[in-house]
Amino acid sequence: MFRKASQYRTELRSNMRGGDGTVKIEHFWEPKTEMLGPARMAAKLTLPPGASIGFHNHEKEEELFVIVKGQAEADDNGTKVPLGPGDTLLTGNGAGHAIRNTGDSDLEIVAVITTY
Amino acid sequence: MFRKASQYRTELRSNMRGGDGTVKIEHFWEPKTEMLGPARMAAKLTLPPGASIGFHNHEKEEELFVIVKGQAEADDNGTKVPLGPGDTLLTGNGAGHAIRNTGDSDLEIVAVITTY
Repeated sequence: MFRKASQYRTELRSNMRGGDGTVKIEHFWEPKTEMLGPARMAAKLTLPPGASIGFHNHEKEEELFVIVKGQAEADDNGTKVPLGPGDTLLTGNGAGHAIRNTGDSDLEIVAVITTY
Repeated sequence: MFRKASQYRTELRSNMRGGDGTVKIEHFWEPKTEMLGPARMAAKLTLPPGASIGFHNHEKEEELFVIVKGQAEADDNGTKVPLGPGDTLLTGNGAGHAIRNTGDSDLEIVAVITTY
């Protein structure tokens, strides 16, 4: 089944995980009713310039970030790393991450969380 | 952990699933050794103009395609649908799909397969 970019359920999260600004979450598919596998979220995250998602850990699950557009600084379980288009971050097994838009345009991320 | 876009393990697949041309697969992370969850593939797929992945089914797993760049025509379990940047296709529970680059530039897709 397919869904067009304009049709996603959109959620706005202010100060997400203690971060700055407002993150737009466009949910591609809903867990359990549409995704029959173990993905509990599959979405596009959009962070305006300066916005961030605060540091948090992933226990018994892992999150894949794929940077689609923009420039970011991630906290990769304690290490600061710059990320740009095409770069990925994988966070699971109890590790933590945070991410901030450090550019002057929107930061767009494809994010998938799978549980285990 | 993070990985830069230039560091992915790259695989070239000709006539993938009976399709045309050569598909470039850039594996973000390796299953089991890096991804501890049920994802058996997480990758960027690049199809040059005219290239395609032939029709195939996904049993006991599902594949998420997110179109990042370019224009495609997908066969969504028997129905032809045009897809562009930001659109998604979810194929699982025995359903099948195929996809073709119908544009004049590369088609780039983020693809994640989870088993269940």
